[in-house]
Amino acid sequence: MARPEIVVVNPNSNAAVTAGFDAALAPLRFADGPVIRCLTLEEGPFGVETQEHVDEVAIPLRRLVERERAAAAFVIACYSDPGLHVCREGTRSPVFGIAESALLTALSRGDRFGVIAIGAGSMPRHQRYVRQMGLAERFAGERPLNMSVAESASGEGTLARMIQVGGELVELDRADVIVMGCAGMARHRKALEAALGVPVVDPVQAAVTMAIGAVQIALA
Amino acid sequence: MARPEIVVVNPNSNAAVTAGFDAALAPLRFADGPVIRCLTLEEGPFGVETQEHVDEVAIPLRRLVERERAAAAFVIACYSDPGLHVCREGTRSPVFGIAESALLTALSRGDRFGVIAIGAGSMPRHQRYVRQMGLAERFAGERPLNMSVAESASGEGTLARMIQVGGELVELDRADVIVMGCAGMARHRKALEAALGVPVVDPVQAAVTMAIGAVQIALA
Amino acid sequence: MARPEIVVVNPNSNAAVTAGFDAALAPLRFADGPVIRCLTLEEGPFGVETQEHVDEVAIPLRRLVERERAAAAFVIACYSDPGLHVCREGTRSPVFGIAESALLTALSRGDRFGVIAIGAGSMPRHQRYVRQMGLAERFAGERPLNMSVAESASGEGTLARMIQVGGELVELDRADVIVMGCAGMARHRKALEAALGVPVVDPVQAAVTMAIGAVQIALA
Amino acid sequence: MARPEIVVVNPNSNAAVTAGFDAALAPLRFADGPVIRCLTLEEGPFGVETQEHVDEVAIPLRRLVERERAAAAFVIACYSDPGLHVCREGTRSPVFGIAESALLTALSRGDRFGVIAIGAGSMPRHQRYVRQMGLAERFAGERPLNMSVAESASGEGTLARMIQVGGELVELDRADVIVMGCAGMARHRKALEAALGVPVVDPVQAAVTMAIGAVQIALA
Amino acid sequence: MARPEIVVVNPNSNAAVTAGFDAALAPLRFADGPVIRCLTLEEGPFGVETQEHVDEVAIPLRRLVERERAAAAFVIACYSDPGLHVCREGTRSPVFGIAESALLTALSRGDRFGVIAIGAGSMPRHQRYVRQMGLAERFAGERPLNMSVAESASGEGTLARMIQVGGELVELDRADVIVMGCAGMARHRKALEAALGVPVVDPVQAAVTMAIGAVQIALA
Amino acid sequence: MARPEIVVVNPNSNAAVTAGFDAALAPLRFADGPVIRCLTLEEGPFGVETQEHVDEVAIPLRRLVERERAAAAFVIACYSDPGLHVCREGTRSPVFGIAESALLTALSRGDRFGVIAIGAGSMPRHQRYVRQMGLAERFAGERPLNMSVAESASGEGTLARMIQVGGELVELDRADVIVMGCAGMARHRKALEAALGVPVVDPVQAAVTMAIGAVQIALA
Repeated sequence: MARPEIVVVNPNSNAAVTAGFDAALAPLRFADGPVIRCLTLEEGPFGVETQEHVDEVAIPLRRLVERERAAAAFVIACYSDPGLHVCREGTRSPVFGIAESALLTALSRGDRFGVIAIGAGSMPRHQRYVRQMGLAERFAGERPLNMSVAESASGEGTLARMIQVGGELVELDRADVIVMGCAGMARHRKALEAALGVPVVDPVQAAVTMAIGAVQIALA
Repeated sequence: MARPEIVVVNPNSNAAVTAGFDAALAPLRFADGPVIRCLTLEEGPFGVETQEHVDEVAIPLRRLVERERAAAAFVIACYSDPGLHVCREGTRSPVFGIAESALLTALSRGDRFGVIAIGAGSMPRHQRYVRQMGLAERFAGERPLNMSVAESASGEGTLARMIQVGGELVELDRADVIVMGCAGMARHRKALEAALGVPVVDPVQAAVTMAIGAVQIALA
Repeated sequence: MARPEIVVVNPNSNAAVTAGFDAALAPLRFADGPVIRCLTLEEGPFGVETQEHVDEVAIPLRRLVERERAAAAFVIACYSDPGLHVCREGTRSPVFGIAESALLTALSRGDRFGVIAIGAGSMPRHQRYVRQMGLAERFAGERPLNMSVAESASGEGTLARMIQVGGELVELDRADVIVMGCAGMARHRKALEAALGVPVVDPVQAAVTMAIGAVQIALA
Repeated sequence: MARPEIVVVNPNSNAAVTAGFDAALAPLRFADGPVIRCLTLEEGPFGVETQEHVDEVAIPLRRLVERERAAAAFVIACYSDPGLHVCREGTRSPVFGIAESALLTALSRGDRFGVIAIGAGSMPRHQRYVRQMGLAERFAGERPLNMSVAESASGEGTLARMIQVGGELVELDRADVIVMGCAGMARHRKALEAALGVPVVDPVQAAVTMAIGAVQIALA
Repeated sequence: MARPEIVVVNPNSNAAVTAGFDAALAPLRFADGPVIRCLTLEEGPFGVETQEHVDEVAIPLRRLVERERAAAAFVIACYSDPGLHVCREGTRSPVFGIAESALLTALSRGDRFGVIAIGAGSMPRHQRYVRQMGLAERFAGERPLNMSVAESASGEGTLARMIQVGGELVELDRADVIVMGCAGMARHRKALEAALGVPVVDPVQAAVTMAIGAVQIALA
Repeated sequence: MARPEIVVVNPNSNAAVTAGFDAALAPLRFADGPVIRCLTLEEGPFGVETQEHVDEVAIPLRRLVERERAAAAFVIACYSDPGLHVCREGTRSPVFGIAESALLTALSRGDRFGVIAIGAGSMPRHQRYVRQMGLAERFAGERPLNMSVAESASGEGTLARMIQVGGELVELDRADVIVMGCAGMARHRKALEAALGVPVVDPVQAAVTMAIGAVQIALA
């Protein structure tokens, strides 16, 4: 039997981000498991930062989902879960959003989740989403890195800032599990977890894990 | 590097149940993925049906977790999630309850989850658990098969009853994703999903999927 | 001082719908009050029925909002509130969604709101929205007319069906205020209210009322 | 057709408060719109500060509503919404409470509402009311001015204090829309909004807006 | 030491109701326990059925509380808890409402409470109160006897109707504890509990129990 | 008629704790009221501090309940309510947990409850329990004494620390009623209440009060 394929789409057009999470998915690639193929949405903005960015990629994502007919599952790899429901409407294969998957995964690792955002501007959108998911009772809080993309791209400073912000979520907001609110932070996951002493969830890894389960179980 | 091991414990002493879900985990076993080892708790009752059954296995499960020091993750394979928190306290490895994992997984596949219980007696316990998890806003309802264990062990009648009860959850309670509220129903998952037309989640598969993600990601 | 202008946009391209709610706004047009101008989004689908329809009008609505720089307020006249947040991001003028406004208005007229939907397909989307708004505790339920657009366009049969469905919301779901979940039902509001004996809220009228308040108060 | 009349009742006997909001309603008076008539409840206390004040005006308000048979709608202009339900029971015309209307209006202008109270003593009453309305998930917080009535009557100091308290609601409690929790603050609304950079809702204006919509729509 | 006194006030002027619950409190009278004195509010209506009845007794109850300075605790013995907060404001002694006390007591005896109302008219008021108390997640439902006062005063028919309505709460709404939503039903408590097979809470007994605890503990 | 007996079990084996709350129950012992008999669970740990402690006493408590067939009611006197549901399953007599009873009692004395914990380690368990009870909307917060058992056993320092922590709950978390989250703090209740100026609830007293009501009412 052919291995099923999971298509992971980066809704922004920054191929470096795609390459970053592609590498971070290595431990979820098995010789006889699903093929995990990472794509960059060419029509996407260079980064998804505003509501306009979120909404302008929805229909292109739907078109991509319609084209990729052979995919056994899809992952939308942007923490705003753009186009999640319109993509679900367009395919019989399951579609996973990385924010949704990350929050659900976090609830299996701790009691109250805290979220590290890149910028403060996306926090009201994320808060609406937590309510939409019906998870407000377990939401400890969200705090922003307040870094530019250029700054966050450079390694050590980003990690140090993540440790500071994550520590505030743990100490001040009483989070006991942390979600990294961005598709491009996976390389800091392990160090952040070690520094904070609580589980840290990378959203792309969380969603791909759920996708693996869905497609493998459907095979049986 | 040695493959990490996930220990899946059946808290009841019915080895046939263990064998059943062991078989149902085949699609989650990868050549280079985690070893998935299924155990039967010898001290457990033949079936976990009452609160007494739930509570009497908690400490034996803790002892088992303490003994299995090499396990990278644990799954407690009973839909009441017995001993979940006491096991978490006893190990640094993540511990997954199948009820918790199933509900979280269901939320990635539908908007309102319905649960098929074996008997009505466990439904208040499950309802408390849904509230404890903070998921009441997405709970469509739970309905019992009201079958004896002997009856549910026989194939066709069980499936027909599950289709009937699942159909009521979809039609009357407006569930759009169904959770099978028992560790031993996996063999009916696919047929039930086909009959109902909505995703059906087997809780052991859901929890092992989450465990695979956790242990593999920790390797990176 | 020039009268402020409220721009009411029909996100579908069916000008008859626009004409319908334009007429229904007559009682909210005052000689010295805001100008209420109703537009049809030419890029829109003929009807907004699917998630794809909802998402594909978001960016065109944003562009329209950006073009209409002189507008003192905007109303998005589709019960799925497409593009609400992306339009808010694109202007300093307040933007009102008719679903949001209708639910808020309903809460001033009764304790538990029921919603009459055109079709069952939009109900999960509406349910997510009720949760996103944080109003689940006051949501009595939603029931569909299950009529085709052609059917609903013809008068008497539509009203009779609305009375039947609204009556079920009142009797079975214990709603004491009804929201008409569509931009094109205003002509039935009064008759439906008389038949049901509880307040009935038309969403376009609700949103324009809120817009009038916002723009007039800002003048002071 | 005669213009419908909206009766706005100040439950306290301080005619200066009535005169204040009467003036603030100027932008909601239209040549061909509803007549907006503001009354002072003569039996009321000089200010509504305690629960006793709230409860002692309920029946007098009911009597007033019964006397004013020609009114098309009523507004109870005290932020504790005294007598709201007993007045609703006594008339077929809609009755609006300014607190209820303000919170609902705020939810159309921001995601999380903060409330500026005159004194801390009324905050537990307001908190009960937020729960009664089912809006707790969107309540950012409430903070008191802690000024005497005499102090709040004098202009500049009041505004400065409101800016300070409103700023704390925005910065510390993450409110993005502010409700002025008193019937007599309208003259500071515009300056406060400019200073805080988020929408500020005056409750009397909010309620009268809703009343205008209700009575005009009923005409059609 | 003098025995502390608990004053139990019937807010309606029907002395037969007072006599009824006075008798039902016999098992809570101890030789060396608090004195339990039952009063009839002379200014009260003959029965508290409407919101007007509820609100018109608030201030007379406050006056009564102020007069009874020696009381160690008060119980307001009407299921609408009229004047509860204004009475609390008027005394340093604890004041218990029978609805509040009954719901809290019910939560110690079952998971989901159902309420038997005398008439449907009070149900929206009760529902608001459940939300105000923050207990909506445990509210199974409320169903009315729909009997006249005269009918409910006659014994057997009332009990039979209560068994029917209580049975619907258990079977259809899945309540596992029942609250009798009236101060005058205590004589049916035991028979109703036997017939339904779930705990039945009389609200006056529940409130007096809590009052006994409060006043005795304060003695220590 | 023989006086009914309430059995109050200390799940830890520290007889000094049992003696402490036995003494604190003096004001709830009436000449003609229920007999209140306090037991120490010999199999229990010296203190219940961990989840393991909580879970290991559940079955021994069930056995005790089964042995004490004559008891009219049971109280489990540990703030984690160990074995509450398994004990309820094992007897027809009502079983009260002191945490559950304390929170319910607190809701009759204030609007938002705060909890004083002995150590921070039990706070996540308590938080899960608040959610399980459906009371999250009224939970102000919990703060730990962070004292060793030895320290808390010595008088004055403990009270001073409780006043400090309770004051933070009142000032920072806006609690207006305080629950002492431990079975052994009763001797400080009165002084703490006087210092804080808000009601303070001792959980053993709260549960025994509820038990007295239940057993006495069942006699009638």
